[in-house]
Amino acid sequence: MTQNADATRHRDKMQKIKAARDRMMATKTDEKGLIIVNTGTGKGKSSSGFGMIMRCIAHDMPCAVVQFIKGNWSTGERSFLQHHFSSQCRFVVSGEGFTWETQDRDRDIAAAQAGWEQAKALIRDPEIRFVLLDEINIALRNDYLALDDVLAFLRDEKPPMTHVVLTGRNARPELIELADLVTEMTLVKHPFRQGIKAQKGIEF
Amino acid sequence: MTQNADATRHRDKMQKIKAARDRMMATKTDEKGLIIVNTGTGKGKSSSGFGMIMRCIAHDMPCAVVQFIKGNWSTGERSFLQHHFSSQCRFVVSGEGFTWETQDRDRDIAAAQAGWEQAKALIRDPEIRFVLLDEINIALRNDYLALDDVLAFLRDEKPPMTHVVLTGRNARPELIELADLVTEMTLVKHPFRQGIKAQKGIEF
Repeated sequence: MTQNADATRHRDKMQKIKAARDRMMATKTDEKGLIIVNTGTGKGKSSSGFGMIMRCIAHDMPCAVVQFIKGNWSTGERSFLQHHFSSQCRFVVSGEGFTWETQDRDRDIAAAQAGWEQAKALIRDPEIRFVLLDEINIALRNDYLALDDVLAFLRDEKPPMTHVVLTGRNARPELIELADLVTEMTLVKHPFRQGIKAQKGIEF
Repeated sequence: MTQNADATRHRDKMQKIKAARDRMMATKTDEKGLIIVNTGTGKGKSSSGFGMIMRCIAHDMPCAVVQFIKGNWSTGERSFLQHHFSSQCRFVVSGEGFTWETQDRDRDIAAAQAGWEQAKALIRDPEIRFVLLDEINIALRNDYLALDDVLAFLRDEKPPMTHVVLTGRNARPELIELADLVTEMTLVKHPFRQGIKAQKGIEF
């Protein structure tokens, strides 16, 4: 009897929550192409972008990736997409590695700018619905790309229904201001501190 | 001349950074199966887990997903993995939806416990290298699963080289304590607040 009363109480409570939630969700009717920023020092900025790429491929939404910094890494995500899904997802590699690897600022700048030119063409392409600009925040933070150009393009030239995701730590405040969806990946605990190296499947 | 001097200064600085970084990375030599927690109210907890699944498939690491809460959602990630990669990635659906959808606490508990039994078998399987327990934090927070059982299993029975990722908001502090890698996805800005609904490719 008590158990039945508990179950009834739970159901009543959940029905109220559901009704309130349904009312709230009924006000969320619009669709738009989002400007999404994943930033912060924690893990998951790029991998979350690639998780969304997986969703796009599942829904037959043509998509694209421009990788701005980790170009010389042989990442799992790159080989996966190039090998299995090259017709659904365009993959552009710009940049040749972390700034301390290339040691040549002019080359870094040229690579970032070439990547941005390709990014603009992909975003403008009416077929493409989702573009991941992986680690572009690093290129913006290092002034490899002019912030105002990137902001103006996203604001004025991005097709209204195209989603663009910009990842990398230290996102510029002006970009955060412009974006629709911003997540800060906050580092709580990281195994590098225990002497654990970057591992397959996890970091690359 | 000034430009050359600048380039030289940049190269010298980057060489120092690289040397320091190489020394630091040389101390990171160990590998181990990680307990990874993605929590917080921001976006990217599950999608980052699925991005790691993409990396695992790319590296031929057999992997598995147990979805604890969103079972009745027709998610892109589920159809993608079941359709294309059922031999590389086992996919178990437990749970029938959010707690306010099912409105039946006993059924929720039974579903979560059945999911946990399957999760344990997958984690114990010596072939499987990476297991994503999607939204298990919700099941733990609602006491659908006994926290002590989950902690004891992860501590004592998880094979040392198997990675386990646990997602969902409100991760229990004891789980955070046990984990190797913890990220809090912090909500900075979300388009629901602008009346934008959940969209394909982004949320599911």
